[in-house]
Amino acid sequence: MSEALHERVLRGDVRAASRLMRQIEDGEPEAAESLRELFPRTGRSYVVGVTGPPGAGKSTLTDRLIAGLRREGKRVGVLAVDPTSPFTGGAILGDRVRMQSHATDAGVFIRSFATRGNLGGLSRATGDCIRVMDAMGWEVVIVETVGVGQDEIDVAQLAHTTVVVVVPGMGDDIQAIKAGILEVADVFAVNKADLDGADRVVRELRSMLELRHVVRETKVLHHGRRIAVKAPDAKEAANGDWEPPILKVIATREQGIAELWSAISSHRAFLESSGQRKLRDRSREAAQFVNLLRDRLLKDALAKLERERGRLDEVATEIAERRADPYALADQLANRLRS
Amino acid sequence: MSEALHERVLRGDVRAASRLMRQIEDGEPEAAESLRELFPRTGRSYVVGVTGPPGAGKSTLTDRLIAGLRREGKRVGVLAVDPTSPFTGGAILGDRVRMQSHATDAGVFIRSFATRGNLGGLSRATGDCIRVMDAMGWEVVIVETVGVGQDEIDVAQLAHTTVVVVVPGMGDDIQAIKAGILEVADVFAVNKADLDGADRVVRELRSMLELRHVVRETKVLHHGRRIAVKAPDAKEAANGDWEPPILKVIATREQGIAELWSAISSHRAFLESSGQRKLRDRSREAAQFVNLLRDRLLKDALAKLERERGRLDEVATEIAERRADPYALADQLANRLRS
Repeated sequence: MSEALHERVLRGDVRAASRLMRQIEDGEPEAAESLRELFPRTGRSYVVGVTGPPGAGKSTLTDRLIAGLRREGKRVGVLAVDPTSPFTGGAILGDRVRMQSHATDAGVFIRSFATRGNLGGLSRATGDCIRVMDAMGWEVVIVETVGVGQDEIDVAQLAHTTVVVVVPGMGDDIQAIKAGILEVADVFAVNKADLDGADRVVRELRSMLELRHVVRETKVLHHGRRIAVKAPDAKEAANGDWEPPILKVIATREQGIAELWSAISSHRAFLESSGQRKLRDRSREAAQFVNLLRDRLLKDALAKLERERGRLDEVATEIAERRADPYALADQLANRLRS
Repeated sequence: MSEALHERVLRGDVRAASRLMRQIEDGEPEAAESLRELFPRTGRSYVVGVTGPPGAGKSTLTDRLIAGLRREGKRVGVLAVDPTSPFTGGAILGDRVRMQSHATDAGVFIRSFATRGNLGGLSRATGDCIRVMDAMGWEVVIVETVGVGQDEIDVAQLAHTTVVVVVPGMGDDIQAIKAGILEVADVFAVNKADLDGADRVVRELRSMLELRHVVRETKVLHHGRRIAVKAPDAKEAANGDWEPPILKVIATREQGIAELWSAISSHRAFLESSGQRKLRDRSREAAQFVNLLRDRLLKDALAKLERERGRLDEVATEIAERRADPYALADQLANRLRS
């Protein structure tokens, strides 16, 4: 009898892990069984998120972090998450090439990862892939995301420590980025710090952090009005007393990389000594559970809809022609759940 | 007896509509009842999406489009969608100010819109707000989104015609943007076309479009492997014979705006004469129905979980400590639905 996929993953078999991650990426149902088996063996990896706008040099920075971790003898898993293009099939190859230097190192496992079309599936699939690397025993898992949208924020919530990479020369754009991903930052890396304007970026980040103190109280009020279907906000709950450091780096010249890793380690120590790592793990699990549940329920409900009413596109045609009422249909399907 | 909120909205009462949209934004359950009543009176507005990376000048461009539509006597609703910052509460004020010139015009209804925390709720809430403007009888609804992530792609899918705004000087970043939002484009606007590099951007977009023809066949194969829980891809299905035009504009100087509106109108004529507007409406309704159903199911399931097992954060603690199995819990909750 052949060995089950999850057993091979637990033995550290990279090919088996790649196969499982491909199943996850493609949303194949058989992945669930393996994940279920792996679950009790997870929860040990330290997860570092690296995120920021396109062109900030995240891949080069990640590459340098890997090199530093390898010098310390740590085994590193890397998940490079790209929004999939429906027509390119996803991964931005140029970026991935920047990490090729580790391609032959058995202590490094890099997997480029893209998913699209599965509604809201990106953060769920990323969380599942982190679990695979975790079960294999990789001590550190780096998750690199490209972008500044809600997706990237959701993915960042899966990390213990999130590094937000920015670069000089973004002009007013820091305004737009501020309104999202900057707030999941545990550590800021101002990359390409030899460019003009690096000091200005540092100053802007600093004043933004000061503003945060002022706004924090009003936020609580604001959030009180929000609805229930919301995973607890990991960073918000767990980052109370941590002041995100702002570090200047030049990844291409390896400048500031040791300091960056040291800031990440300090944040880790902070989370552990303050007991907040537990809070963060809890929030992570809550978000992943909600994702799992939501996908599962929707899949079942759509299958039921198809059996009873017809295919989704047929039903959608009826809705578009105002011959069917989407609210009544949703009620009918949801009522089964409640009984 | 006072008039119901939906009746006031149908009469075109802007204050009532704002109130309903605030309810939608905050995820308040009473919004559902009004939406249900409005639904049969919707489906008439033409929806134009304006999207692109931060700093591309989308708000200025939208402002100029509004002015053009007003000269034709059309009544315009505008939804400016921002990713909400958990600490600023969202809307990027500077951008909104750029549209202030229409603040006193009764033929223009601008609503800034931000939502976060409701998992995957952004595109659902946006779709619902479009319905409100639609029911009020606004002939054109412009939806402006900030960003390049999956969220923005989902929102773009709600539009009949999507304008993707890019600017020169993004360097390699066009690579990253390419891998997502460019593919929902029906019309490209290269804004700030007086800057160096505008022609290069046009050339890059053009070669990207050529590439698309080549890749389209392989995509079908690729997608064949994807799972079922996927809303039909509106743009993919409906845009077969349309070649997205690439227009140079300078929004601040009103250059190219008439041509841009003419390209949008051509796309609209194309959709209508080819019968593809129906396909697109169907896809939109499918996506919105899936969002509605998903939120509804999840809310019911989490309420059930809380009654039977405890609060989400308590359950998440058990999961984090590996005392509970998330897969088994999801099974239990989903099994009620199937019966």
